[in-house]
Amino acid sequence: MARSRDPKQLVDEAVGGDRAAVARLLSLVERGGQPARDVGALTYPRGGGTYTVGITGAPGAGKSTLTNRLIEAVRADGTEVGVLAIDPSSPFTGGAILGDRVRMQDHALDAGVYIRSMATRGHLGGLSLATPQAIRVLDAAGFPWVLIETVGVGQVEVEIAGAADTTLVVVNPGWGDAVQANKAGLLEIADVFVINKADRQGAEQTQRDLEDALGYATRERHRPAIVKTVAQSGEGVDELWAAIREHRALMESTGELETRRGRRIDDELREIVVRRLEQRADELCQGPGFAGLNADVLERKLDPYAAADKILEEL
Amino acid sequence: MARSRDPKQLVDEAVGGDRAAVARLLSLVERGGQPARDVGALTYPRGGGTYTVGITGAPGAGKSTLTNRLIEAVRADGTEVGVLAIDPSSPFTGGAILGDRVRMQDHALDAGVYIRSMATRGHLGGLSLATPQAIRVLDAAGFPWVLIETVGVGQVEVEIAGAADTTLVVVNPGWGDAVQANKAGLLEIADVFVINKADRQGAEQTQRDLEDALGYATRERHRPAIVKTVAQSGEGVDELWAAIREHRALMESTGELETRRGRRIDDELREIVVRRLEQRADELCQGPGFAGLNADVLERKLDPYAAADKILEEL
Repeated sequence: MARSRDPKQLVDEAVGGDRAAVARLLSLVERGGQPARDVGALTYPRGGGTYTVGITGAPGAGKSTLTNRLIEAVRADGTEVGVLAIDPSSPFTGGAILGDRVRMQDHALDAGVYIRSMATRGHLGGLSLATPQAIRVLDAAGFPWVLIETVGVGQVEVEIAGAADTTLVVVNPGWGDAVQANKAGLLEIADVFVINKADRQGAEQTQRDLEDALGYATRERHRPAIVKTVAQSGEGVDELWAAIREHRALMESTGELETRRGRRIDDELREIVVRRLEQRADELCQGPGFAGLNADVLERKLDPYAAADKILEEL
Repeated sequence: MARSRDPKQLVDEAVGGDRAAVARLLSLVERGGQPARDVGALTYPRGGGTYTVGITGAPGAGKSTLTNRLIEAVRADGTEVGVLAIDPSSPFTGGAILGDRVRMQDHALDAGVYIRSMATRGHLGGLSLATPQAIRVLDAAGFPWVLIETVGVGQVEVEIAGAADTTLVVVNPGWGDAVQANKAGLLEIADVFVINKADRQGAEQTQRDLEDALGYATRERHRPAIVKTVAQSGEGVDELWAAIREHRALMESTGELETRRGRRIDDELREIVVRRLEQRADELCQGPGFAGLNADVLERKLDPYAAADKILEEL
């Protein structure tokens, strides 16, 4: 028999520890529309205990392996952990990426770990609005830590990883100079820099480059830690986990965590409002008056801005 | 004495052939705000005679040299020509680009040529909305041809070049396979492909690659012409100019020109409406009720979507 898909019941089940209900709720969030909104409204008041860690960096930097190791470190502390792997690309082109994901299946039998890949589906505003809603599901389900790994360093991915409580930026030795990180906006969002594959040549130089770049980056907040790891062997991962907890303690003791979360809510609210208005614009631009206005503009009876005014008057 | 900056007077002067007035109007368009709107409203009813040619391609493909040669070809026909060089990057980083621009100064003493670089300034919606307004100035000023050259193949630049009546995509031999052009969205927008620096090795292979790529590109319109040039020496430029006029004739005779222009107006109207609504969203998100809503969300009394509803109610 098919299980009920009523969001309210699913949220109760998820809060009670039912992982299948968590999976269904995340699918609803991905798909968007009113059910996704309902899930958000139902989970939001029941959350508040989750601390999020964003993990970003260029493809091939070893983020998946590192995430895998971090899961081990969190689990060694006896704490549960949820993982969202954010992939803006189509699942059909993600061959190599899927390969990486498979490695995370090491934890498939551990009920204290929940891993989920997320892609854009119907959610209004795409992944940048779907991800906070997905985090709310894991938050209500009681995960004290949620890791958010992005596949690459596209604009959306950097935005999503940067919207975590603590953001890791993963680079490699010789990965390029600090200018590259600066270009991608990574210096601005990094709370902890991870030089992964640090057993390769150039790790020291990369560290110096990063230190130099951070030296002249404008940044009100504290200077990001730089940690060297070899995710493949697990080297440095304990130090990384310690750096994350240290950053968390700093965020909590200084009140910066509240400030950041308030700012994130500002951003999310603004984004929701803009998306709604864009939807409204789409409706207006398909309305009955639109074709006539277009014809008037084409015949130069009306300039485009005057025509836009007329469309906006309908609002 | 400082000349009047009243847009109405400037438009009259520009229509009368005053190039200094054209320059001032373009500056007003770049700067944005109400004066830019006024310029658009004043020039739009006085235009309609301009045919636009977009020129795009990767940096270093030789677009500036080619544009320079095209200016000569248009001038050899005794026709006036305006050129907009669209540069989304800051003018302070454009050293090499400025070097290219200097070559266009060959035409500095020819009153039948008007060349202008455009960067993003305050214009609402940036260059993608400023460029059509700038074209309207040149249109009202009586230029029968306007060339729009973009510096690179960024999203905005491809969009701008693709919004011309005829779009040239400039590639080089061995410039990369057709997949590259496909990725950047260049196959979709090209009306004429120019293989520039065609005296280099690989021109024939590039032509075959393009033909193959165009073969399986989904495209309702006619198959783009492929022209080989050596802009440095002028070789092939007459053929290119002929291909442009041929494409124009095809566009005009099939009614495709009107269709395209109507579609462009659709796009522009929608873009203006979205930008206005975004402005409105910014205002709403700075309004007095916003901080209180943010606090309610932070305290989980309200979920973000419910808070957004409250903001939108103010509209």
